[in-house]
Amino acid sequence: MTISNNIRKDFPFFNQKVNGKRLDYLDSAATSQKPQIVIDSLNQYYSFGNANIHRGVYQIAEQATEQFESVRDLIKDFIHADRREEIVFTKGATQSLNWVAFGFFKQFLKPGDEILISVMEHHSNLVPWQQIAKLTGAHLKYVQLNDDGEFDLEDFKNKLNHHVKVVAVAHVSNVLGSLNPVEEICRLAHDAGSLAVVDGAQAVGHLPVNVHSLDCDFYAFSAHKMFGPTGVGVLYGKYDLLNQLKPVEYGGEMIEDVDYQNTTFKDLPLRLEAGTQNIAGVIGLGAAVRYIDQVGLKEIETHNSQLLDSAFNKLSNLPEIKIYGSKGALKHHDIISFNLNGIHPHDAATVFDSLGVEVRAGHHCAQVLMRYFNISACLRISIHAYNDEEDINQLITAVKEVQRFFKH
Amino acid sequence: MTISNNIRKDFPFFNQKVNGKRLDYLDSAATSQKPQIVIDSLNQYYSFGNANIHRGVYQIAEQATEQFESVRDLIKDFIHADRREEIVFTKGATQSLNWVAFGFFKQFLKPGDEILISVMEHHSNLVPWQQIAKLTGAHLKYVQLNDDGEFDLEDFKNKLNHHVKVVAVAHVSNVLGSLNPVEEICRLAHDAGSLAVVDGAQAVGHLPVNVHSLDCDFYAFSAHKMFGPTGVGVLYGKYDLLNQLKPVEYGGEMIEDVDYQNTTFKDLPLRLEAGTQNIAGVIGLGAAVRYIDQVGLKEIETHNSQLLDSAFNKLSNLPEIKIYGSKGALKHHDIISFNLNGIHPHDAATVFDSLGVEVRAGHHCAQVLMRYFNISACLRISIHAYNDEEDINQLITAVKEVQRFFKH
Repeated sequence: MTISNNIRKDFPFFNQKVNGKRLDYLDSAATSQKPQIVIDSLNQYYSFGNANIHRGVYQIAEQATEQFESVRDLIKDFIHADRREEIVFTKGATQSLNWVAFGFFKQFLKPGDEILISVMEHHSNLVPWQQIAKLTGAHLKYVQLNDDGEFDLEDFKNKLNHHVKVVAVAHVSNVLGSLNPVEEICRLAHDAGSLAVVDGAQAVGHLPVNVHSLDCDFYAFSAHKMFGPTGVGVLYGKYDLLNQLKPVEYGGEMIEDVDYQNTTFKDLPLRLEAGTQNIAGVIGLGAAVRYIDQVGLKEIETHNSQLLDSAFNKLSNLPEIKIYGSKGALKHHDIISFNLNGIHPHDAATVFDSLGVEVRAGHHCAQVLMRYFNISACLRISIHAYNDEEDINQLITAVKEVQRFFKH
Repeated sequence: MTISNNIRKDFPFFNQKVNGKRLDYLDSAATSQKPQIVIDSLNQYYSFGNANIHRGVYQIAEQATEQFESVRDLIKDFIHADRREEIVFTKGATQSLNWVAFGFFKQFLKPGDEILISVMEHHSNLVPWQQIAKLTGAHLKYVQLNDDGEFDLEDFKNKLNHHVKVVAVAHVSNVLGSLNPVEEICRLAHDAGSLAVVDGAQAVGHLPVNVHSLDCDFYAFSAHKMFGPTGVGVLYGKYDLLNQLKPVEYGGEMIEDVDYQNTTFKDLPLRLEAGTQNIAGVIGLGAAVRYIDQVGLKEIETHNSQLLDSAFNKLSNLPEIKIYGSKGALKHHDIISFNLNGIHPHDAATVFDSLGVEVRAGHHCAQVLMRYFNISACLRISIHAYNDEEDINQLITAVKEVQRFFKH
């Protein structure tokens, strides 16, 4: 747990107090904080480099285009895609997943086909599939959790059959923190003749992601959860598949030739990037990736897992607490969800806030999982590289305080 | 022309030289520069206010939500919408227009219906309608230009009939600068039983926009063309119509209740804002609107129109030049497109750049209009409040230089 001392100072966010208390930010799964280097990259762009891209013949515009396109190369390397054309910039993971559903699978699914997702999916990897199922007549099925509260691989194997055309799963659950066995899931899906979509919103920036070795067909993530700006994300797709994804939006820059009644489109990736992109957002995402590379993804992963291990053990030792998901600390990747017996999670989070401990309370955009656990809401802590043992100690103090408070 | 002296210093972009020359930025129709106050608002948010919105029970998250939602009120007032629920945040004008086409009209259009747009539309208000026409069997028709190179109201009246279900026009043309008579267009469209969509990307921030008095049904614009950040825009729709617009994207925050096979959705506007929004972008848009209010929209309009008048007259007096659109200076709203006889626009723009004069050369995402003029490309200058007479003088010098250069 050595990197956090150096890292915390990189984030101006922590140069403030909340209610006169140290700020213990434990909500990185909702959005991560931003290092100064990312904020500076936006500043620099808007102050001196701002021009629309792909269109300008003057130098500032060409430099903006180069900066923007260089981030595509950076992302390609970061997630180990085979080609830069496989990286498409979107508004965020939600848009990426919607484009996969509506731009790609809507063309191919038909009545009798099956879509297989898990009960732990975030709404962004669940509601689009419900809608696609309704539109196409395909059937949406769910993989359950096993006895350890993890993705049930046996149930998955049982539900896989030649009717299944899409398997879509989170790389890391945004509630349980489970690292799903996506490489095996993709292999099994392919063996059954299905394609595989991975929602990587909680994985990228937390652990090494290699879309080539995962062999997933599509992979989605957001910049704002990996130290980058809001309003920008990535859709990765295998070239031949992405090439069959029909644009969901039409406009400038994606076209080759527009006549009165017909239009021909550019090749990937521009074909899927209609209109002025979130240029500053993409440049900020590039700065975030460079920051992660500089700190070291391996170091981040080790730091986070050690810290989460500590948090898990300390929380587990408290009375009157129910932790959701696996009973093993190491299976919670940077996220733990729990409830305190007899205390509404919103009440707990409100008291936590008064103590400077910022956690999330709610359904975490995973109502199907809440139904699965027969709860309406829970508390969730989520960490990233800037967190340290003091954040965890403050959390434990806050939990004890809440339990004392609501006992009376 | 008094405001520019004060305004130019608000934009850090102009604290730089290009090729050792003063930077004469004449490409605001592609994207505007950003005042320090907008850049500061992003800084402030990312440094100290960053949290995901609508979900958090802790104060920083609540403040972020309040900041975000207060911009909705600001935009409502800025464009004179009746209700805050009529303001939906999007990725930009392109996404706004696509949602109108695919989320609203796709449900209703059928073979035999007609879509009426103009030859001067930007691809973002043209290609979506082509696609919708193909999908629904509706027919896409075009209003031509009149003898003065403006939207031909007579041709429009002739083409309006009870088959026309959508009229979609630019408020201000991104090539010609024409201010189209959208109030009359909307009235005539409604009289004929059609709805009216206005692409306001080049209007908002340049002139007062009152969607209530225009009586348009949908209105779209982008933040980045009105001193705001990239990656964020607005869709305005009359409440009852917007309420019938089916979400094009599904995910977190838009839902009321998600069950295994069915989902119910929130009311407007959140129903159309799936996933984490461009929170910083929206906050930056708010800062841009406050900046415009502070400078004064009326003052900006007067300054810009006087400056454009001067540019038009100076350009018109040059030999071997062809200006597209109206022969009247006052009909070019902050935009003039032209060609220099015998000189390729890209070559001209490249020489201009070497002199610090930044203009756009190309088809300006309006290939149908290029076909109409029987050209493949042209030069375009576009101004905003930070421009001054010196920019225009430098432009004229640059044109003369180019003409001299290519004569030899």
